[in-house]
Amino acid sequence: MKNMIVASPLTAKAFAPYGDVIEITGKPDKLINQGKCGRCDNLAELDFSDGIAGISIFESEPQQFPYVVDMVERHPFGSQTFIPLNQVPMLIIAAEDANGTPTGPKAFISENGQSVNIRRGTWHGVLAPIGNPGQYVVVDRVGEGMNLEEHRFHMPYIVTHPDL
Amino acid sequence: MKNMIVASPLTAKAFAPYGDVIEITGKPDKLINQGKCGRCDNLAELDFSDGIAGISIFESEPQQFPYVVDMVERHPFGSQTFIPLNQVPMLIIAAEDANGTPTGPKAFISENGQSVNIRRGTWHGVLAPIGNPGQYVVVDRVGEGMNLEEHRFHMPYIVTHPDL
Repeated sequence: MKNMIVASPLTAKAFAPYGDVIEITGKPDKLINQGKCGRCDNLAELDFSDGIAGISIFESEPQQFPYVVDMVERHPFGSQTFIPLNQVPMLIIAAEDANGTPTGPKAFISENGQSVNIRRGTWHGVLAPIGNPGQYVVVDRVGEGMNLEEHRFHMPYIVTHPDL
Repeated sequence: MKNMIVASPLTAKAFAPYGDVIEITGKPDKLINQGKCGRCDNLAELDFSDGIAGISIFESEPQQFPYVVDMVERHPFGSQTFIPLNQVPMLIIAAEDANGTPTGPKAFISENGQSVNIRRGTWHGVLAPIGNPGQYVVVDRVGEGMNLEEHRFHMPYIVTHPDL
């Protein structure tokens, strides 16, 4: 079927067109605190345009597969980072843009230890914790202006997962 | 003994002189995503002076009580937010400033769901996850200049916890 999407694991490579996966990979960039702490440095492309960074908490109702995507949104003035607080997997929908319209949405499922930064102006679905309510620390723009654009699909997409 | 500190629970009120506790308290400020998600908005006083916000991951060795504090540090050019990824309690040491010297350090222990933002220029101890290695997403300043000042205590402080 045309409008089926199979969710795949969230990896930095697969997610590169849409933003950053914030996770520990390999050795830290530096050791601090007398060698007791490793720092993996500056892992995301933050961009708040004319605004400033703010920190909020989102608490979202659980979702499940099959998951219906009838809408995506984007924030023209800022990136948005989601950091899971309670180890619930996130289903992340993201799409490239073609002349102002989202095209070819993809679906990714996170695992423990992964946070995600969605690049400024990138189409994405709303927060979708899978199986349990999810709490997320969110780093996004504080500032004036209408920083939200929504797009509704004429024919919704159905997201499935091979194991769930 | 003069240099003993008993760690107390991390609360917004007790921590107010040093920064913000980022946690869900009461009702969200707004509902988003068709009512499926609550947003507790802009919970911390972020300040990166002439720099910009960056996101890093710190991975720190575990500590235990009694905990010896022989040094605190501060970042003159930026605030620093610690968001626990793996639900390990943080021991947070913070101190007020008296003419460039930290004075009267206090100790706080976090619980699940609590992140902490240390205000720009506030004296604090290094990351101290209690009992297990801790992973933290850190939001702090990316920019030029020497953004670290350290102070060593002539007589170290010993931090204990009533239950640990």
